[in-house]
Amino acid sequence: MNKVVVGIDIGGTNSEVGLVDKNGNVLDRASMSTRKHGDDFDAYLKDLSDIINQLATKNNVQINGVGIGAPNGNIHTGSIENAPNLDWEGNVPLCDKLRIHFPGVPIKLTNDANAAALGEKLFGKGKDIDDFVTITLGTGVGSGFIVKGELMYGHDGMAGEAGHTVVDPNGRKCACGRRGCLETYVSASGIVRTAAELLSIHHFKSKLAEIPFNELQSKHIAQIAEEGDEVAKEVFEVTGRTLGMKLADIVAISSPKAIFIAGGVVKAGELLLKPVRENLEANLLNIYKGKVTVETSGLPGIDSAILGAAALVV
Amino acid sequence: MNKVVVGIDIGGTNSEVGLVDKNGNVLDRASMSTRKHGDDFDAYLKDLSDIINQLATKNNVQINGVGIGAPNGNIHTGSIENAPNLDWEGNVPLCDKLRIHFPGVPIKLTNDANAAALGEKLFGKGKDIDDFVTITLGTGVGSGFIVKGELMYGHDGMAGEAGHTVVDPNGRKCACGRRGCLETYVSASGIVRTAAELLSIHHFKSKLAEIPFNELQSKHIAQIAEEGDEVAKEVFEVTGRTLGMKLADIVAISSPKAIFIAGGVVKAGELLLKPVRENLEANLLNIYKGKVTVETSGLPGIDSAILGAAALVV
Repeated sequence: MNKVVVGIDIGGTNSEVGLVDKNGNVLDRASMSTRKHGDDFDAYLKDLSDIINQLATKNNVQINGVGIGAPNGNIHTGSIENAPNLDWEGNVPLCDKLRIHFPGVPIKLTNDANAAALGEKLFGKGKDIDDFVTITLGTGVGSGFIVKGELMYGHDGMAGEAGHTVVDPNGRKCACGRRGCLETYVSASGIVRTAAELLSIHHFKSKLAEIPFNELQSKHIAQIAEEGDEVAKEVFEVTGRTLGMKLADIVAISSPKAIFIAGGVVKAGELLLKPVRENLEANLLNIYKGKVTVETSGLPGIDSAILGAAALVV
Repeated sequence: MNKVVVGIDIGGTNSEVGLVDKNGNVLDRASMSTRKHGDDFDAYLKDLSDIINQLATKNNVQINGVGIGAPNGNIHTGSIENAPNLDWEGNVPLCDKLRIHFPGVPIKLTNDANAAALGEKLFGKGKDIDDFVTITLGTGVGSGFIVKGELMYGHDGMAGEAGHTVVDPNGRKCACGRRGCLETYVSASGIVRTAAELLSIHHFKSKLAEIPFNELQSKHIAQIAEEGDEVAKEVFEVTGRTLGMKLADIVAISSPKAIFIAGGVVKAGELLLKPVRENLEANLLNIYKGKVTVETSGLPGIDSAILGAAALVV
């Protein structure tokens, strides 16, 4: 019987489950609603376990480990701690409860961006790099720091929240309750907020003005920018400037050889990456100039979160 | 014959040399001018070697290692790289050249703030802490990150320049050529600049106004604040606010258990530390609140740099 690990990505809407071999191939996958059972965590966990077992039976494999990426997932406690975008309140002892369904199987949890960095190290472009940073740009903004080949967890298992470093202390309101976090500028919704801000400045001379704010998504802005719309292009220039400047600070802390950008927003490609690189380089302290690369993640978009989670137990 | 290591702190003005035993006791010390030989690095190194040998002979000890802390010291290359405050230009191969004088002896170099963090780990308050940050507040502002019990060097040996993360991109001019670096606000001279700024706002109603800007030092401001001068007290409140807010960002990156503040400026004590703690806590992301302590370094002020350098080779 082939041995595999299970990678699970718990998102605010869906939970994705995949069987992963030691080379980083996703053999099979399944999906379930994270919200279906409301705040009944045990019912959610029962469904999740059933799905894992069904996948294992169907593929005739033995499960050697379960790795999970989730918002505010703590590697030390195995709990999801006060995740603002999930229905379960307080500290949810995910690993302890899942062990009841899979006795004897190693089970590990970390936050989704840390998992993405681990996945990059094991299966992506970070294989041969000992010091790099992964930045995830999606609904939120996360980060994972690989230091000397290992993830930097911090004393409490919660390191790597670059999305909540501050761009402007008097800036945009953040879901975390504070103001001006990087996430409010460069997440998917942060980019839409920048579009609205630029529309107010440019007095609506843009195709972006034809889409209601509630319906506008970063992918629309990228499409419209590709068509040559000046305001839409400026949205990515402003976003790239903000991210590039913040990455210069991050380089001054951990001096990575590479920065990998992951998450839905990177579908915008060079529209985003070009201004990120330019503004990073322009803002770097001299000793770091010309040394750091910025690239998209090497993990396939559809499986990146599953691979990252699986990397915890491979 | 007792075995010791040599700790050397190369500063812009003086180079301090000490003999250190494995318990962190400084057995003897000497000092020489860093600038005496101008840009003649070989002449400087000859004098430095003579001083080391004289100390060893006088104390009848065998030298088992030489650790050096210097601005822009690179652990990987053993060179001082383009240090703006030293007379030697370009990359100075300090370790390679010193090995000629001490063949077979392990010789290591890192930057002064990294050395301070290592010293805290081996001989100070960081002995039992695996994840902490040291911030040095002196002529410049440096930092060293201890991650999983080891110093974070980055891919190029140059990690930990928190003094050159940006507080305000349109802010004060920095010696590094950029604007608004933390160093321009919370270094010894940054504090004097804040005094001048507050004097301009408060229209000179302060004892600080009696001292020429060129002569004013952070220790004077601390003395005048202790006497109750409102502007001088505000200087430390503003400094503490700036540092506390920036430390909140640093916690979001590496999630340390403790932050140790070292360097001449900490002689101001609670005048500085109280607002640092208050503003750190107020600006922390929820998951970090109540978890991080801010304390002065546990290394004795006079020997802290020597002990930090010695920690490289103990």
